[in-house]
Parts: sequence; structure tokens; C-alpha cells
Amino acid sequence: MSTTSASLSPARASIDFVKVDTYGPGDLSARDVLAARGLSLDDVIAAVGKTEGNGCVNDFSRPLAARAWESVLPASAITVMSGGTEGVLTPHINLIVRSGSTSTGLIAAVGETDIIATSSLGRRAQVEAVAETVTALVGSLDVAADDVHMVLVKCPLLTSDDIAKLHELGDPPVVSDTYASMGESRRASALGVALALGERSSADVEAALAGAPAAWSSVASVSSGAELDTCHVIVVATSPEPGRLGAIHAVMRDALDAETVQSVLREVDRRGGTVVQLFAKAEADPSGRVRGRRHTMLTDSDIPATRHARAAVGGLLAGLAGDSSIYVSGGAEAQGPPGGGPLTVIYETTV
Amino acid sequence: MSTTSASLSPARASIDFVKVDTYGPGDLSARDVLAARGLSLDDVIAAVGKTEGNGCVNDFSRPLAARAWESVLPASAITVMSGGTEGVLTPHINLIVRSGSTSTGLIAAVGETDIIATSSLGRRAQVEAVAETVTALVGSLDVAADDVHMVLVKCPLLTSDDIAKLHELGDPPVVSDTYASMGESRRASALGVALALGERSSADVEAALAGAPAAWSSVASVSSGAELDTCHVIVVATSPEPGRLGAIHAVMRDALDAETVQSVLREVDRRGGTVVQLFAKAEADPSGRVRGRRHTMLTDSDIPATRHARAAVGGLLAGLAGDSSIYVSGGAEAQGPPGGGPLTVIYETTV
Amino acid sequence: MSTTSASLSPARASIDFVKVDTYGPGDLSARDVLAARGLSLDDVIAAVGKTEGNGCVNDFSRPLAARAWESVLPASAITVMSGGTEGVLTPHINLIVRSGSTSTGLIAAVGETDIIATSSLGRRAQVEAVAETVTALVGSLDVAADDVHMVLVKCPLLTSDDIAKLHELGDPPVVSDTYASMGESRRASALGVALALGERSSADVEAALAGAPAAWSSVASVSSGAELDTCHVIVVATSPEPGRLGAIHAVMRDALDAETVQSVLREVDRRGGTVVQLFAKAEADPSGRVRGRRHTMLTDSDIPATRHARAAVGGLLAGLAGDSSIYVSGGAEAQGPPGGGPLTVIYETTV
Amino acid sequence: MSTTSASLSPARASIDFVKVDTYGPGDLSARDVLAARGLSLDDVIAAVGKTEGNGCVNDFSRPLAARAWESVLPASAITVMSGGTEGVLTPHINLIVRSGSTSTGLIAAVGETDIIATSSLGRRAQVEAVAETVTALVGSLDVAADDVHMVLVKCPLLTSDDIAKLHELGDPPVVSDTYASMGESRRASALGVALALGERSSADVEAALAGAPAAWSSVASVSSGAELDTCHVIVVATSPEPGRLGAIHAVMRDALDAETVQSVLREVDRRGGTVVQLFAKAEADPSGRVRGRRHTMLTDSDIPATRHARAAVGGLLAGLAGDSSIYVSGGAEAQGPPGGGPLTVIYETTV
Repeated sequence: MSTTSASLSPARASIDFVKVDTYGPGDLSARDVLAARGLSLDDVIAAVGKTEGNGCVNDFSRPLAARAWESVLPASAITVMSGGTEGVLTPHINLIVRSGSTSTGLIAAVGETDIIATSSLGRRAQVEAVAETVTALVGSLDVAADDVHMVLVKCPLLTSDDIAKLHELGDPPVVSDTYASMGESRRASALGVALALGERSSADVEAALAGAPAAWSSVASVSSGAELDTCHVIVVATSPEPGRLGAIHAVMRDALDAETVQSVLREVDRRGGTVVQLFAKAEADPSGRVRGRRHTMLTDSDIPATRHARAAVGGLLAGLAGDSSIYVSGGAEAQGPPGGGPLTVIYETTV
Repeated sequence: MSTTSASLSPARASIDFVKVDTYGPGDLSARDVLAARGLSLDDVIAAVGKTEGNGCVNDFSRPLAARAWESVLPASAITVMSGGTEGVLTPHINLIVRSGSTSTGLIAAVGETDIIATSSLGRRAQVEAVAETVTALVGSLDVAADDVHMVLVKCPLLTSDDIAKLHELGDPPVVSDTYASMGESRRASALGVALALGERSSADVEAALAGAPAAWSSVASVSSGAELDTCHVIVVATSPEPGRLGAIHAVMRDALDAETVQSVLREVDRRGGTVVQLFAKAEADPSGRVRGRRHTMLTDSDIPATRHARAAVGGLLAGLAGDSSIYVSGGAEAQGPPGGGPLTVIYETTV
Repeated sequence: MSTTSASLSPARASIDFVKVDTYGPGDLSARDVLAARGLSLDDVIAAVGKTEGNGCVNDFSRPLAARAWESVLPASAITVMSGGTEGVLTPHINLIVRSGSTSTGLIAAVGETDIIATSSLGRRAQVEAVAETVTALVGSLDVAADDVHMVLVKCPLLTSDDIAKLHELGDPPVVSDTYASMGESRRASALGVALALGERSSADVEAALAGAPAAWSSVASVSSGAELDTCHVIVVATSPEPGRLGAIHAVMRDALDAETVQSVLREVDRRGGTVVQLFAKAEADPSGRVRGRRHTMLTDSDIPATRHARAAVGGLLAGLAGDSSIYVSGGAEAQGPPGGGPLTVIYETTV
Repeated sequence: MSTTSASLSPARASIDFVKVDTYGPGDLSARDVLAARGLSLDDVIAAVGKTEGNGCVNDFSRPLAARAWESVLPASAITVMSGGTEGVLTPHINLIVRSGSTSTGLIAAVGETDIIATSSLGRRAQVEAVAETVTALVGSLDVAADDVHMVLVKCPLLTSDDIAKLHELGDPPVVSDTYASMGESRRASALGVALALGERSSADVEAALAGAPAAWSSVASVSSGAELDTCHVIVVATSPEPGRLGAIHAVMRDALDAETVQSVLREVDRRGGTVVQLFAKAEADPSGRVRGRRHTMLTDSDIPATRHARAAVGGLLAGLAGDSSIYVSGGAEAQGPPGGGPLTVIYETTV
């Protein structure tokens, strides 16, 4: 895997999608499922996992999974490991696999940015780096922005060493708390997606970095971690040539928004599809309230707010989908409105 | 409040139900709501709260709320404070208030057992104590077991001091871990409810205490705490004389069981009612799996399983009800099937 | 207890000091110890406790203890409840009691500031408010700054509601994270002590508020909590008239600084004293290192750094003192050098 | 690494000892230190690390470190990764390296048991398996039991899957809680050490497994984890032929026992040595009290007791040793008296 944003997967790769539960972060038994389905490990372009750590700064389930998969995947493949399977959520791995010449209906491209300097983390430079990579990936897929249903990003965070070094250099970081740095990194990455897809203007992005809550992406799904220093990016879009796979995205307006989820699930049903996977972002509403009522996620010093949010929204989505093996990631800065988050459903129709 | 099981509220008290969000465990501003609705603090027979502590052994939000309410309520009133408002849940208080001569449709009776000796906790003696109190309360209401839609119980736990003293006396406690003692206490109380209502036989109860998972109550909702040494019991039933309030109960078969919840909500709707409050129990399925898929609630040493379960099931129910101010309590031993739990909805019809 | 800084205890009250272990936050059995020692509850000017909550934002053991003591103490008495008895630390209460006409050797005065507006928290206005109260209290004691061995302050924090309201008003708070607000409040209070005692200049304070790490007090011991909206202040000094009680203070330079502790304990011994109580502040070194070696307190998203620090420094001090019932409080912003903290030992000589 | 107890390192290997701080669980930069000291990776017989996870069931820092080292060490080498660097403790790795023909004064042998069946975990079969391996290793070193200063053991735990499967088979595990299983595994392993070294009789061991607290080893240091299914064993002894390295062991009688630590450090000094490394076990006294005063480690549902104990005892030892990069492991069942634990210091004399 190169460290430049030029490191892109082949253009318009029609993809297949394989989801397998894991018994631990290092579990690679999904390889057997691949094989059973006649797919090759060499064709995997991305491994996207929910691993069972705390999803926060000291989540070692992420690097354990990332290292395990990186040791068996092609060098051009990327990993996005999102920690935290609170509540009913099931640890699992999603493999995105380049498929044969027949269109599956879904296409994807993957890449990564250059190294994000610790002084750039959470700032305009990170926004630009992600935006450039997303732009290049969308370009390589040759689709319209409207066809993009999800942009997964895995981005770095600041460790206490990073923070101390920047202070010593007289170059203060965006924030001086390691957990808070995860949110700033997610925000910058999501704004990069919004910028690249034309969802928001450069001025909106600038305002958002300065604290305005109004700029967000409807398709970005970003998580951060200590296991990487670049941003890994996956763009998933529907192909102009239809096939057996499809995708729908929507935005949950808050953590109680069952209606939007049900509406998407009904649309899948209307199209004769069955759900393959559901990707969602969740967060504690920064106002401390949900629909006007107080929540306590931001005053609980024992459990980080992202863990609360994953558990709650994961409980809702798993119940509605009847499936606990779904991808719910915590911390939705600039991903959907405050307290809400983007939702992408991948479905399959049996033709 | 007397310490004997003879301490019962007047028979067949028709009740009103007042639910108010709180800004902290000691918040008594629900008194203003009572007054605004023309109800008197003197008529309150029970204060049932969700408070914002961890819901575990060292949850001091429970005693803070219990002491605050006990200082203003009649001596005969009881408190049931259930800690833990993980995820989207909103801390709130439910006041059960004796209403006038016109039937509201709902009746309730409250009482408490004698002190549960630490050596009896989680054992047959606790089962019997709760069963006796429930039997007396149901008798005082003069209703059939089928009319009982919820039995709330608050019961003690074992502290490390209790456990050490029992070991010193050569009289080992039911378990030697403080958090685990909460579950044993809940189980014994719930079995007491099941026994009193004829849901299970004495032999079933014996087997359940010995480890068999099959005996459970469909209406018990039990939580434990360090703030009391007796069991507080509230029986809520529908009155033979109908009124504007009603209750429906059902059993969630697992933490993903949206269907049962939706079915109850539809039935409320069919009856022309609107939901006043929803009471549910939640737990991490002891098998480590939900619908065959692994969950990690029982291997997470950072967050107790009851907190995970409240967050997840609370997220589902709040989303379906469109209301985060609901009563979801964690740890459903002998309350519904393993991994599931009883659900009671109180609704109001506008006549 | 009035809410103005004019609310001071009588001048130069010679004090006695009573330390009693508690079995829970609401345990008032120290009253029996007072009585057995011929002291009156009416003469208590301050109750200073270590309670067993998490010591963070949602610590309900603090209000539980504060409300319990406030209900039995004179209105002029103040409470300082510091949460967190991690590791070997024992929950206990310290009562500071006005004694008779004979000098005990120790004097103390207590007071409180006006309400700290949420927009002022962590800022110059809080510094000034604390400084004024400390100045008034030291003045009432009529002692030199050098005779002051400890200034305990309990100060407010920002809840998520406070933070949301300030953002709505376009008046952003000092920080937007509830846990972080505790540190900012401690810092401002400690700088107020340093300013009042002439330890630091007004310019130093300004620089410290702007982020410079160099300004700190050698005698401030500050903790924050949601249970109050003013700052409670206790000044403890040695009296010009000697007696059986004495105090020594020193500054631990880091969390490993056993030497300083041992040196103070040897000095107590040299003076023929026995330790009555030990007060210390502890913090995770903000550099992420202690004596050049990495610690992980700032990258652990499961346990707040203040809890780690109390456990570790508490373990060291309790071992050296041979007593676990000591006052170790977490978060030492502007209290001693970064990573270190002030230490005050109160001792008794048998004449 | 074979899975039989016959898998032993060459007899009486004189060893060198290399301690290096790590910047993360997967950090292998200690290899550079080895090289700089003229030592070969091929001669490493054991890698003993403190990693920065929670040290509990879901600690993924342990497998991350174990896998990383196993990928570069000889197949015969074993790993013992102990999670948890609470408080001031510094993550680090200790490499035990076979040295040349000149005696260093210290010898060591390593091996592992057969797989411990989940139904045997915490039971007599595990005791026997560990005892056999220890006996074989001590035999291979050809030293007296008195020369053995430390036996490090890493042993398995029970996951929720293990527990559920055993219940399904009607073969209940020793305990049904995953965290509690760690303690039972440690206890059985430590009793195996005590049995092999003749510290305790077979009858004592039987009584201890049945709950008697009196049987324990003075040199066992055991930790458990999900990353292995056998027990890894390291025996460290002093050689009949002296050299520049030495070892002293003692037993802390409780978590406040600074005296014993200081006494050992003075003895090192008396021998003209400097401390190379300090190994200690720590636990929350199961009585809920330390020296008669209450601690809250066993009633804190937010932080596991082993984390509290490591933080507190680590704080004491690091302060006394002036070094935070020490090996303090939590959970001392049958390792030293209740509430205390064995302590081993390795020192170097400059000849």
C-alpha cells in the first residue's frame, strides 16, 4: 500500500460484498467464506471491520485486526477497522471484492492520503487531503456525485506524545485531549468528503472548522484510530450498469429516527431486495438533548459518549433490521446533522 | 414506611400516573407538575425513577433520589429508583398517585417485605418474602392474577462488607462478587413474583434457584440496589371498572424483538390510546449470543453487561416509541426468557 | 450559608480536627466521634470528605454527602466533598471544629464566593472571586501568607446543559467538554489562591489562563463538582500561639516523588508529632511522561486520568503513611508543578 | 512452540535480562537494544511484557504484543504479556536472553503445559498441569526450590462462548463470569507452582480449591488472558555459580506494605547492586479492607478491582524504586496472602 493519494484501485471495479462474523479481532476465517463463494483473496480491495474494543484512543482490537488482514491481503487493499460493538452489535468483517466482468450494480474504489502531519490533524490540510483523494477516487469510477452512496474514511488521532511534542514546538494541536482529537479528525475528514462531492462549499467548510455546526456530508462515514497516520478512503457507488446489488442512503435526523430507517428498509423491500449490510453513524447529540429531552451521554465520565451512541443506535438498527451484525460507528461530526448521521443500506435482489 | 409486609397501601386505590423529566437525581420539581394537575403529594403511593448513575453496585444517584423523595412523600409511600440511563435514555420520575373516587382504569398497591438477611439474599427466603408481599398486595386489590400487568420490585444487594462478614461467620453468601449479587437478588425477587401470581410452581422456582434457566415471570420488573435492605414492591393492575388509563404487557423474546414492541404499540393505537409510559427489562443474553450471533456484553470488562443492555434495548424502545423518557431497567434474571424481558405499556385514552 | 464572600467564619478560630472513616457517602456517624471527644456539631466549620464516586462529572456520592452534612451542620459551615477513593483509599470525613479558648496551634477560616456564572467558569472572573475570598479569609485570621499551609477550594463545573446554553447565547464556554471543564475550574481557583497569597503575580495568572504551565500555588488543593455553583474555600494556617496541632506543607515534584513525602514525614517525627491527616493533590503529567518514561493515563479512554492519578499517588502516600484514610484529590492544574502537587500534613504532638 | 510440557528450553541457561520501554503493544524496537548490547534475537527464551490494555478479558494489547513477538522470536521462546499499566506504570518489554558460557548468576527455563480444557480451568487438572511443567523446568535447571525466585505463568481464561458451551454440555465451568474466570485460572496456576516447589501440600491445594484462603505461593506471579489455551511458564532462579546478576524475593503482606519493599531495596543496596527490574503481584484485599480500613475496589462497578490494585501498588512501588517501568500484575489469588503478593527484584552488581 503506497502512501500517496495516487494509490488508487483500478477504475470502476464492479464489486461483490462479503460479510462474516468474527470470533475475535484477529479472526481471518472469512477467507473460507470467500473461497466457498468462489472469490479470491487477491481480489479483495478493502476489509471493513467492526472490532470489539472500546472504539476510542486505546482500542487495540483495531490494529490487531488491521495487521492480521494486511498480512494476507494484496498491498493495494486498504483496511478500515471501526472499534466498538457495544450492546447487541456483533463483531464482523466486511470484505469488498473486485468481481468479474458482469456488473454487480455496485462499484468501489479505494485509496489513501499522504501522511497527515500531527499539526494538520483536524484542520484544513486534512480536509484538503481527504477531498483530493475522494475526488480522485470518484473520478476513477467515472460516476456522478449522486451515484455515491457511501464514503468510508479511517483517519488518525493524536496521542499524548503527539500533543506534548506539538506543545514543545510551540505549535499547539487542534485540541490537547487524545479522545477529543478523534472527533476533530473525523470532522475534518467528513468535511473533505462533503467538499469533494460538492455537498458543501469551501466557505461552509471553513465555517465548520471554526465551530459552525451546519456543514455536513450525507454519505461520509468516518472513524479514527491510532493504527494509521494517513487517511484510508473507500468510495462506494452504484454503477450505471445495474446488477444484483444496490445501495440506498439516507440521513437519520437524530438517534430516535426509526422512521427514516424503516422507510429505507421498506424501499429495499419495494425493490425486491434483501438487506446485505447496513452502515450507520451515531453520536450523542452535542446539545445534551434528543428531541428536547435530556440525555446523559455527555456527562457520563465512566463511558465515552461514542460508546453510548453506538450502543443505543446499534440497538435500534439491529432491532429494525433483525440483524446484529451491522456496521454502526460512533462520532458523527459533520456526518449528518448534530445528533444524527448518515445511513447506507446495501441490498441484493435475486434476479 | 414500616418494615413489615403488613405495610400495604389502601385496597384498590385507583391511580393516576405522572411522568416528569428530572435535571438530576435530587430534582423534586415533579411536585410542581403534580400541583398543576390538581394532585396532592399526600396521595403519592410510589415514586419510580430512572436515575443517571451506573445502575450497578456503586450507584449513588439512586440513594440521592430515594432520600430526596422520601423526605417529602407520605411515610407509607415507597420508592423504586432504577439507575442507568445509558444511550438516549432520559432521567425521569414516575409518580403513582391515588386518585379520586372515579375509576381511572388502573389500580395499584405498594408494600415492602421484612429485612432480607444477607444470608438469605438470592435464596429461597427472599423468594418467599417477595411472594408473600405480592400475594398480600394482589389480595388487597381484589383482582385476578391476569389483571396484573406489572410488579415492580426494588431489592437489596451484597456489599463487600456483607460478603466478608458472611465468610467470617462460615455462612457463605449466594455469590462472593458484589455486582453478581445484584443479579441473584433480582432473580429471587422475580421468582417470588412468578410464584405469587401462579406463573410458576414451587418446584420450578427451586429448579431456577439451582440454575435452571426456564422459570420466569412475564410481569416482574426487578432492580437491586445498596440503598435498601428490604424489598419494595408495587403491583399495577387494570381495574374491573374501566377508565381513561389502560395497560398492556408482553414479553420481548430477545433484545432485537422490535416486532413485539411494535405489536403492543399498534394495540395501544387500536384502542385509541396514546402511550403514557413504557416499562421494560433488558439483559445481555447469557449465552453470549443474540439470534445466534455473538455479542460482546459479557466479555467487556470496561462496561458492565447491564449498562450495555439498557443502552441497546433503550435505544430500540425509545426509537419505536419516539420518546427517550422511558423506564428501561437492566438485568432480567427470571424476568422473561434468557436475553429477553417483560414489557408493560401504560396508555391513556381520551374519552 | 450566605452566597456572598462576606460569609466568613469568626476570626482566628483555633480548630480541632476529627477524621472518621465512613461506610457510605451519607454516613453521619462521625457525629458520635465528635460527641465522644466532647466536641459539638454546632462548632463544626467545615466538613471535608473523600467520597467513593468517580470524582468526575457524574459523581453523585459528592452531593449525597454534602446534602447529608449540610442538613445537620450550622448554616455557616461549608462542605468540600472530593470524589474518588481509587485503589487503597478509604472513604472518610474530616471535620474541622472550632475549639475552645486554648490555642490548638491551628486556625482556620471558611467562606464562599458569589455564584460563578457559567460564562466566567475557568476564566479571570473566577480567579478574582476566589482570590477575594482567600484574601478576606487570610485577613480574618490575621496571619502572614507564610503561615497558610493549605487552601481547600471546592468549585463548580459545566454540565452539558450549561455548555449548550452558552453556545446558544453565542457566548462560548472556556471548554465544551464537561470533564475538561472540571480542570479549567480547578485551574482558575488555584490561580486565585496563588494570587491572593502573593505566590504569583497578576501577569503570571494571565499567562497561565492563556496556557502557560508555569504559574502554580504550593498550598492550593482544589476540586470541582456539579453539586455547587459557588466556590467553597477553607484556609488552614498555623497560629502564632503554638499548641498540640501543627502543619507542614511541601510540593511533590511528580507522582513518583516519595522523597518529598518521606522528608515531610521525617520532619513530623523530628518534631515529636504523629500524623493526623495527609492532604495531597495528584495528576497525570500532561506531557504523557513521568521522569521521561511514558504513562498511559492520557490515552486510556476507559478510566479518566484523574482516577488513575488518585489511585497511583494514593497508593504511594498510603503506603508511606501506613494509612489508607488520607485525602488525595485528583487534577492538580496550577497546584504544584505539572505532574506534581501540593502536600499538607497535619500532625499532633502529645505534650 | 510445542504444545507439550516436554517443550523445555535447554537446561541451566545462564540468562541476561533486557528491559525496554515500548511506545505501543506491537513495538519491537527492543530488538535494537538487544543488538546494541551484542545479544541475539535467537537467544531470547522469553518475552515478558506489560502492555497497556485493561488487563481484563477484552484486553487486545496482550495478543497484539504476543503475536508481534512470536513472529520474530525462536519457536521455543514463550511470551507472557500482562495487561494493565494503570497510573504511573510504563508499558515495556522484558527480554530474557540466553547468555554465553560465563555465568551471569541467574538461570531460567521456560515451557508450556498441554492445552487446558475449558472444563479443567481453575480446577485440579490445571494445578497438576502447571505443577508438572514447573517440576520439569526446575529439574532441568538442577537447582533447589530455595534458589527459585520467581515463577511467571500466563494462563487461559473462559470466554462467554466457552461458558455457554460448557453449560450446554451439562458440564458447568468453575465460574460463569468471564472476568471471574481469570481469577480462578490464576489461583489454580499459582497452586500448581506452590505444589511443585513444595510450598504447599496436595491437601492444602485441595482445600484452597474448595475456598480456603490459606494456601499460597511466595514466588508465583500469574496472569491470565484470552490469547492462549495452554499455560506458559518461566522459572527464574539464582545459579550456584554467582555472576553480576542476582535476585531477591519477598512477600508484601498487603497493598500498603512499603516496609517489605524498602527492606528488599536496602538489601540490594547492601549487596552493591542496582535494581534491574521489579516484579510484583497486587490485588484488592478480598475482605474489602486493608489494615482494617474499608477500600472500595470491590464495590466499584466502573473499574475492575485488578485495575485498581495495579494502579495503587504500582504507584507505591514506582515511587519507592524511582522507576515507573516495573512489572506489576493484578490479581494475586494464591500468590502471597490475601491482599498481598510476591515481589521479586532482579539486580545487577558492577564487579
